[in-house]
Amino acid sequence: MPFNAYAATAAGAPLTPHQFEPGPLGARQVQVRVESCGICHSDLSMIHNEWGMTQFPLVPGHEVVGIIEAVGSAVEHLALGQRVGVGWFSGSCQHCHWCLSGHHNLCAGVEGILIGRPGGFADRVQVDALWAVPLPAELDPVSAGPLFCGGITVFSPIVECGVRPTDRVGVVGIGGLGHLALQFLRAWGCEVTAFSSTPAKAEAARALGAHDVIDARDPAALAAAAGRYDFILVTVNVPLDWEAYLALLRPQGRLHVVGAVLEPIAVQAFSLLAGQKSLSASPLGSPATVAQMLDFAARHGIAPRVKTYPFAEVNAALAELARDRPAHRLVLTH
Amino acid sequence: MPFNAYAATAAGAPLTPHQFEPGPLGARQVQVRVESCGICHSDLSMIHNEWGMTQFPLVPGHEVVGIIEAVGSAVEHLALGQRVGVGWFSGSCQHCHWCLSGHHNLCAGVEGILIGRPGGFADRVQVDALWAVPLPAELDPVSAGPLFCGGITVFSPIVECGVRPTDRVGVVGIGGLGHLALQFLRAWGCEVTAFSSTPAKAEAARALGAHDVIDARDPAALAAAAGRYDFILVTVNVPLDWEAYLALLRPQGRLHVVGAVLEPIAVQAFSLLAGQKSLSASPLGSPATVAQMLDFAARHGIAPRVKTYPFAEVNAALAELARDRPAHRLVLTH
Repeated sequence: MPFNAYAATAAGAPLTPHQFEPGPLGARQVQVRVESCGICHSDLSMIHNEWGMTQFPLVPGHEVVGIIEAVGSAVEHLALGQRVGVGWFSGSCQHCHWCLSGHHNLCAGVEGILIGRPGGFADRVQVDALWAVPLPAELDPVSAGPLFCGGITVFSPIVECGVRPTDRVGVVGIGGLGHLALQFLRAWGCEVTAFSSTPAKAEAARALGAHDVIDARDPAALAAAAGRYDFILVTVNVPLDWEAYLALLRPQGRLHVVGAVLEPIAVQAFSLLAGQKSLSASPLGSPATVAQMLDFAARHGIAPRVKTYPFAEVNAALAELARDRPAHRLVLTH
Repeated sequence: MPFNAYAATAAGAPLTPHQFEPGPLGARQVQVRVESCGICHSDLSMIHNEWGMTQFPLVPGHEVVGIIEAVGSAVEHLALGQRVGVGWFSGSCQHCHWCLSGHHNLCAGVEGILIGRPGGFADRVQVDALWAVPLPAELDPVSAGPLFCGGITVFSPIVECGVRPTDRVGVVGIGGLGHLALQFLRAWGCEVTAFSSTPAKAEAARALGAHDVIDARDPAALAAAAGRYDFILVTVNVPLDWEAYLALLRPQGRLHVVGAVLEPIAVQAFSLLAGQKSLSASPLGSPATVAQMLDFAARHGIAPRVKTYPFAEVNAALAELARDRPAHRLVLTH
């Protein structure tokens, strides 16, 4: 039985209804009936082939929540009817050093669901069972989808970079990623500052957990905060004044990038050296960290702020995301 | 009684005999009679005012080994006649977060011995007692001086970056710093590769502990080692093909710079992001780490390879360093 989806048939084209045969379910896969799917800025980048790796027709969507309706012959830990979430990664080898050590997201063979495969703007998806992570009952299934991409993208570095509750942290950008980072870091116990170039978002940032909001376009405000932060998370994908952000760091501080900045990041060795600072970046997170994130979100009442669109209005939703860069996440629902 | 030293009176000038009054010994200082002093590339940089912060006359020298001949009134843990070493840092506040947490080298008030103060190309120096670290009896005093700058510069990041004996590591540059890094990392238990643009140094690199030597000028050799290293230590101060070195790293790998590279380091966010990689840098190390390094060096028979010059031939020694960038360290002795 074919799957029903929305697909772009060429770079930048509007999505149109699209049917395809999924092929047989793999022994280690599950088939998920899609209940909702968040829209990530990466979907726009893939639709417009900004990264040069899109194969058309492209079925976007990688923030899926749905119900398992079939399990592969080798899957023992998931059951029919169980609610799971699926993010950008849909499979990994399960036997390399990285998979065996709990860092499946760093597997050389990790599959991006949209890289030659159909995503979640569809009625069903098939993915590696280890990458379909059960959704705790406490989490709202309509708003949970964005946790599986935007959420884990900002949560995993908090874990991996060893952010501590005693740290002073900054979040650059208050959009789909940033608005989740603020919530996680506030619940983590940190002193949290939001950096935004959109003053209108300041109130929202405080509501999401920011103790302080700094206008990222104001060099004097940035200079006044010099040497203050242990960890700054960059969630935007545009070039910044990198030296100014390194100067915001305390000794041993880390500037961590999760936005897909395409221009080279140029820094002075001395700017890193004097304070033993780091520049780093990371891709999403492992299934184990996804599960920890869901548990943490449930305990602390953390949820994406979402606006829903019916799947049939996917093009209107994509247009809103491209136009407004809203401080909430857009989610498609049936 | 004045101190007798060698000083540059202007940028790039040859060193000439120089006398100065040291002023009274501080309560927390010790006075060290200099037995030997290594020559670091930073001495050349300071003599030529490459960093724009040299005050003339400049007495270079920051790899001192000597004997304590006076202690300040508040110094209780060092005694007259004790042999100590002194590196680039000669004092810190001792009460800030960084001093209190054992990272004195990250203190905002940390003193560079050559920054407005006279260094070790002299018969005596006065420094903060905490920065005069006792030399274990097992270490040869003539060759130990370079441990206090070149040595700690490469040893501290091994500790701070959490390098593990199971790691595959690379050292870029086989000079005063690199030749010590190779010895430390071999003794640390790692698989060690030296990267050098000087094929004649390959044999020396192996003798110092490298399991493998890669010609840094050979793009094919670099490409063949892609994804191999957990940690690469850059000890040179010239621009590299940074993307090529990031590509050498495994997931979670770190490219760590201790050379004073003056040109901006430009990297692609994606080159860091896909493998959760880091770019970082660090300045020397804390007194506690210096003491650990000395103990580790004594246990493993690690020593700088040195060539000695009499203090009176300091200009010939500086000329050799500038001309040959030798794979050993030059040391001035009385």
